[in-house]
Amino acid sequence: MWHWGGKQILEVTMEYKFSDKVGNKGFDGLGLMMSYLKNPDIIPFAGGSPDSSVFPNKKLAELAKDILMKNPVTALQYNIPIGYEPLRELSAKRSKEKCGAGRDFDRVVITSGGAQGIDITARILLNEGDTVVAENPSFMGSIGSFKSFCANVVGAEMEDDGVNLEQLENAFKIEKNVKFFYCIPNFNNPTGLTTSLEKRKKIYELCKKYGVLIVEDNPYGELRFSGEAIPSIKSFDEDGIVIYVSSYSKIIAPGIRIGFVIAPEKITEEIVRVKQFGDLHTNVFWQMLVTEFVNSVDFDTHIDNIKNLYARKCTLMMSELNKKFDKSIKIAPAKGGMFLWCTLPETDMDTIELFSITGERGVVFIPGMSFVTDSRKTSNSFRLNFTMPSEEQIIKGSDILSNFFN
Amino acid sequence: MWHWGGKQILEVTMEYKFSDKVGNKGFDGLGLMMSYLKNPDIIPFAGGSPDSSVFPNKKLAELAKDILMKNPVTALQYNIPIGYEPLRELSAKRSKEKCGAGRDFDRVVITSGGAQGIDITARILLNEGDTVVAENPSFMGSIGSFKSFCANVVGAEMEDDGVNLEQLENAFKIEKNVKFFYCIPNFNNPTGLTTSLEKRKKIYELCKKYGVLIVEDNPYGELRFSGEAIPSIKSFDEDGIVIYVSSYSKIIAPGIRIGFVIAPEKITEEIVRVKQFGDLHTNVFWQMLVTEFVNSVDFDTHIDNIKNLYARKCTLMMSELNKKFDKSIKIAPAKGGMFLWCTLPETDMDTIELFSITGERGVVFIPGMSFVTDSRKTSNSFRLNFTMPSEEQIIKGSDILSNFFN
Repeated sequence: MWHWGGKQILEVTMEYKFSDKVGNKGFDGLGLMMSYLKNPDIIPFAGGSPDSSVFPNKKLAELAKDILMKNPVTALQYNIPIGYEPLRELSAKRSKEKCGAGRDFDRVVITSGGAQGIDITARILLNEGDTVVAENPSFMGSIGSFKSFCANVVGAEMEDDGVNLEQLENAFKIEKNVKFFYCIPNFNNPTGLTTSLEKRKKIYELCKKYGVLIVEDNPYGELRFSGEAIPSIKSFDEDGIVIYVSSYSKIIAPGIRIGFVIAPEKITEEIVRVKQFGDLHTNVFWQMLVTEFVNSVDFDTHIDNIKNLYARKCTLMMSELNKKFDKSIKIAPAKGGMFLWCTLPETDMDTIELFSITGERGVVFIPGMSFVTDSRKTSNSFRLNFTMPSEEQIIKGSDILSNFFN
Repeated sequence: MWHWGGKQILEVTMEYKFSDKVGNKGFDGLGLMMSYLKNPDIIPFAGGSPDSSVFPNKKLAELAKDILMKNPVTALQYNIPIGYEPLRELSAKRSKEKCGAGRDFDRVVITSGGAQGIDITARILLNEGDTVVAENPSFMGSIGSFKSFCANVVGAEMEDDGVNLEQLENAFKIEKNVKFFYCIPNFNNPTGLTTSLEKRKKIYELCKKYGVLIVEDNPYGELRFSGEAIPSIKSFDEDGIVIYVSSYSKIIAPGIRIGFVIAPEKITEEIVRVKQFGDLHTNVFWQMLVTEFVNSVDFDTHIDNIKNLYARKCTLMMSELNKKFDKSIKIAPAKGGMFLWCTLPETDMDTIELFSITGERGVVFIPGMSFVTDSRKTSNSFRLNFTMPSEEQIIKGSDILSNFFN
């Protein structure tokens, strides 16, 4: 960082009185992951980033120039918080088509990435001490957001076909002010597991029965490279209890921060009101560019190319790990998404302890603890990303890890 | 909006239990303003938008294409929450140069517009019931953000040379948990008034004495078209008590949502942590594009052109209003920024009542009530924007308003 010059004062004596919300830190898995993103010498099994070779930069460059030349006022002037109408419509149509999400009472709000959709939803729903029930393990960014609003985050264990329903119902019964159930039904982050159709229906009925909203996070739904697509929980939503969040991060590019929320209007009205204070609106130029891109290419073929690449990488990583890892290490099979979830046989082993050691040997993963809803607990699992590393890195990284674990 | 199809259910019966924070609504001046932005038939004295003719779209188009062709991975991949290093450095250098902001203990965080900088600062500092003291009147978006965190917002009256110091000190003495003083020292929104150097120093000393932080919002500082620039309050900050927020919205374009915060590292660390949950990071491509643009043009000349245009429009609006308005209507003279602040002689007149009537006649302004810190109070003032309307619209709009007021 550049130096400011002038009178040198390096230390501040002021004792800052932060909000109580700042105290709820937990383990900073997301920060940890981000800090490794930039080091090109380390094999990046830790990230959640797409393979950058799939970024359609040439087409985007051409359209970008067009938009700025032909439509500069819309692209550069202030806009309305709810989002750019053509992108709202496109997102509605595609969500309905791909997974049945959306009804007449629903509205679409464009957000600055799916993360913002979840964070604002938490902000408008949560009072201090309210409960969020989440799949355990679950995405650390979302858990971090809920905790930052001083919510009580309670986990229900993720099983091969989705969350444990008894634990879910039990949490609804005993926890105080359960506001919503947070889930990633397609290729859960970190486990890669997908909730079955049957369980999706049961989750919906259970939430309806207990008056609990559902925040359905679907960043990876379109990255299915094996098996049939399953309708979203939102597709059953005749009662207006599901807030559906998705994004273009994994199917166009993540750096652009374009996502969306589909929810009943009474909810989107509040989301819009808070977004107005938060960032006013999402970058308009990119809302236009995403719209233009999807409408001007064969978008399904574009996504097929991404899926084929990820299928190949996933298969390679699976076969490398199966070949090299000790058989006692369990690897959850993935049919899509971006991650493999590995579990060591020793239940008392905390993978956070392994993290810095493998890091020194040139490969990083995310220790399971980062995803555990109860931050006091350790985890004998870890998450591996197969989309960002090259095939060569997948082979080399699997070698390093297996030498370490066996 | 497009129709979703399928089984038609228009009404949701679910009773949503929102966060208490959602209850703190007040008058939605920002929403009101945004709702008028899109109607081209209405003379836009209400907005806070730049003149779109100053958007450097041709140069941006050329650089945009270059960035996406030559540096697609950085432009499109995930990045770190604190922001793109070259833009952080550029923002630091310019802020130091233009208004003395920043010392060795400070760090720069790039935010999705200045609004996000203020909103996140509020989020990390405020507990329910904490007090924010603000210039009264003040920017409705910021007040709305503070209230959305259930803060008690207390106003100290804005005078010709800045906030009333007695009221400020009094608020620090009697209010509970005063966390920060929020101010716009250059061309306050809505009044256009600028805080004198002397008062800036006294504000700093007063805040230091009472252990109150200062959130210095400076979106308009570079839009001074008359008189000498005054050092920022941040320039006195030897104690690490000032959080300085600015943006590129008014000097490049607002739709891109690129702003920044300069604050002591202990504070920026918390801002970064929350930003990570909020939107992960600001659109990287635009962070790069702003950097490239500033570095590849004569940026001071670019800003001079904007200032010359605004000076001409401001002078025109002032002379039109002085000529046409009844002398009993007070108009605060502006030396920069974007707004004129008009006050009716009748102190019991509420300009909100005039709003819809003049709207029907084709001109909209923002009623003063939108900016009042105490939402129970009315206002006999209103804000006029002189940057967005054309010179023709300024003349016509002044006619309509003066016919109405005289």
